[in-house]
Amino acid sequence: MLAEIITIGDEILIGQIVDTNSAWMGEQLNLAGIKVHQITSVSDNAEHIIKALDEAKSRVDLILITGGLGPTKDDITKHTLVKYFNTSLRFDEDVFQHVKNLFARFGREVTDINKKQAEVPETCTVIHNANGTAPGMWFEQDEKVFISMPGVPYEMKRMMLSEILPRLKQKFSLPAIVHRTILTQGVGESFLSEMIADWENSLAEKNIKLAYLPSPGMVRLRLSSSGKDEPILRKNIDEKITELEKIIPQYIYGYEKDKLEEIAGKLLKEKKQTLALAESCSGGLIAHLITSVPGSSAYFMGGVVSYSNESKTNQLGVKKETLEKHGAVSEETVTEMALGAKDKFNTNWAVATSGIAGPDGGSDEKPVGTVWIAIAGPNGIKTKKFQLGGNRERNIAVTAITALNMLRKELLKA
Amino acid sequence: MLAEIITIGDEILIGQIVDTNSAWMGEQLNLAGIKVHQITSVSDNAEHIIKALDEAKSRVDLILITGGLGPTKDDITKHTLVKYFNTSLRFDEDVFQHVKNLFARFGREVTDINKKQAEVPETCTVIHNANGTAPGMWFEQDEKVFISMPGVPYEMKRMMLSEILPRLKQKFSLPAIVHRTILTQGVGESFLSEMIADWENSLAEKNIKLAYLPSPGMVRLRLSSSGKDEPILRKNIDEKITELEKIIPQYIYGYEKDKLEEIAGKLLKEKKQTLALAESCSGGLIAHLITSVPGSSAYFMGGVVSYSNESKTNQLGVKKETLEKHGAVSEETVTEMALGAKDKFNTNWAVATSGIAGPDGGSDEKPVGTVWIAIAGPNGIKTKKFQLGGNRERNIAVTAITALNMLRKELLKA
Repeated sequence: MLAEIITIGDEILIGQIVDTNSAWMGEQLNLAGIKVHQITSVSDNAEHIIKALDEAKSRVDLILITGGLGPTKDDITKHTLVKYFNTSLRFDEDVFQHVKNLFARFGREVTDINKKQAEVPETCTVIHNANGTAPGMWFEQDEKVFISMPGVPYEMKRMMLSEILPRLKQKFSLPAIVHRTILTQGVGESFLSEMIADWENSLAEKNIKLAYLPSPGMVRLRLSSSGKDEPILRKNIDEKITELEKIIPQYIYGYEKDKLEEIAGKLLKEKKQTLALAESCSGGLIAHLITSVPGSSAYFMGGVVSYSNESKTNQLGVKKETLEKHGAVSEETVTEMALGAKDKFNTNWAVATSGIAGPDGGSDEKPVGTVWIAIAGPNGIKTKKFQLGGNRERNIAVTAITALNMLRKELLKA
Repeated sequence: MLAEIITIGDEILIGQIVDTNSAWMGEQLNLAGIKVHQITSVSDNAEHIIKALDEAKSRVDLILITGGLGPTKDDITKHTLVKYFNTSLRFDEDVFQHVKNLFARFGREVTDINKKQAEVPETCTVIHNANGTAPGMWFEQDEKVFISMPGVPYEMKRMMLSEILPRLKQKFSLPAIVHRTILTQGVGESFLSEMIADWENSLAEKNIKLAYLPSPGMVRLRLSSSGKDEPILRKNIDEKITELEKIIPQYIYGYEKDKLEEIAGKLLKEKKQTLALAESCSGGLIAHLITSVPGSSAYFMGGVVSYSNESKTNQLGVKKETLEKHGAVSEETVTEMALGAKDKFNTNWAVATSGIAGPDGGSDEKPVGTVWIAIAGPNGIKTKKFQLGGNRERNIAVTAITALNMLRKELLKA
């Protein structure tokens, strides 16, 4: 079962927006057992769209189209599809009622322009757009399926998940596919691949594929297997994950879409314990990640971003002698920072970071990328030194991720 | 002059990575006066690549290809191009020397696999890859130009800017194009378009096009004009910008790629003044933005993320009575937070935020999205209330952006 994604919009071609829809759709289709053969982006032009539809039809069985719907686009996609399928528009009362309801929710009257959203091609199946006014359209011709969706990501995603994918699964006998993702932190891709080489080689006999998905400070490992019997696929993958958990237990922090700030937050909530931060080189990023989680005010009391020696002393109680003797980037200072934050904010836990993010500030003894992290908890303090690279942005990100993972590990031990 | 971008890689089709290369290339080509007609993403498959090349050749004059180079891809693009152009590989000593130099920089020997990077098609012009080992390749056939570049964004971008675009400008007589971007903050797209409607209508007679580029809290306005005489284009656009500056002076904060955290930082540096932060609802994001600027430790002393009432009292000296009488989200509290931060960190300036980011914590009187911001400076304090929306992530981002712009304005007044 091959698919092609066609995205419509001049704004994609001139680089005004990045086409993130295609990647998301590609992933979802892949997860459902549909292979995406090609992605094509074309302009808001009827002739160009028709050519792309014809070419796609010659290549694949399923064509997914996004964009070019709505008043600002003069509904170019809808009018082009009417022409392509040699049909005409009819007025759909259900769609109109939905548009009216959406407008009523914002206390607005439906304008004539918006009323046009309820005009749909005669020969299509109308697909409900729960998050917007422009409906989706499902056409079938010569045993090929054409589906048009709005280009607004939030509307398209909802439509794919609740309407399109279930219908595709019903219509086509797609293979069962099982994916599982294991999240690792603290080990680079190449070192990781050496450590798990034997395990990786053993995957082939169970027909399991492995993908390495690296991002700053983390590597995600995705296992995929397809076949006829979903329970067996699931069992095979689960067994391999159990094996992997024994090989690299120290690096695995979660599964699927888990986030470290959510995992740490959940542990704190369960324990009814609280957290404070003392950030130097991470510059507020840990606080930003922690507070991006809804409900974080239940366990996060606050933090200090101490970018000067004075603030380390005044706000966190780091001793002047410690700073003079060992410097701001040292085990001694980061320890006092963590203990100071724990004390000042009266929490069970505190995380402290101190390092040289770069590009300036490095020395032979402490080059750019030198980072100390401390976790103060109910049972004492844990410190660790890291030697990161030369890129400021990356150093800040990796420090934050690494500190959150250290916190998670200490929370599990406590 | 029409172009097509072909990106090669299974990882794009399965949604493992978002194809950001195309958007960047589309923007650059557009800026250079080359129109991108289509973007096509295909798999790492010779037959598929050849079909895409043939189709592109029938549509456009210039075909830019990225991806599918290097050992992990078995150099699929290079081998396919050799086949497509009916040529063979030769060993290029210059490329080999460059590969050796790159490896030497990391203290490594060139392996046989990497030596293969120096094999290039006989009929192509080799394009230097300053940031990597896989060279670019420039082919010409039937008056069409085909250019293959590596898929690594950092390598491709450097190659486009220093090699490809200059050569394209030399080879083709491209129209002169002038773009200028004006950055606004604090006004929504629709309200802005009403305010500048007459001005916008006046652009047509000077052959200037306007694009609205919105992002949370900001709208960028891009003016573009193409023609033969660059100085005249530039003069026309400059005149229109001067007009616009008189219509919406209060909303314009910068031009082109300016960032608010950099502008504010520069002003502080010039004045030799310092900054502290007291963040509640922005949760550390302002600190993260400020410290993302290299050299920010010269003017940023630090901040407190105060996520609890206790920390507002203990760390910032907010009076208990103030919190009890007016609540944490109030003009009185945010004022005391700013003054407290300014005092505790001993700075010239302090920025404070307090609000309800959501999804919980709202009330009839103070719904989700209610935000107070205060700027304390050498000449007193400025406070302002904002009513943002219901989305936590967006509320945090808009609060940070808005606070930075308020700081910028106060810095300019002082």
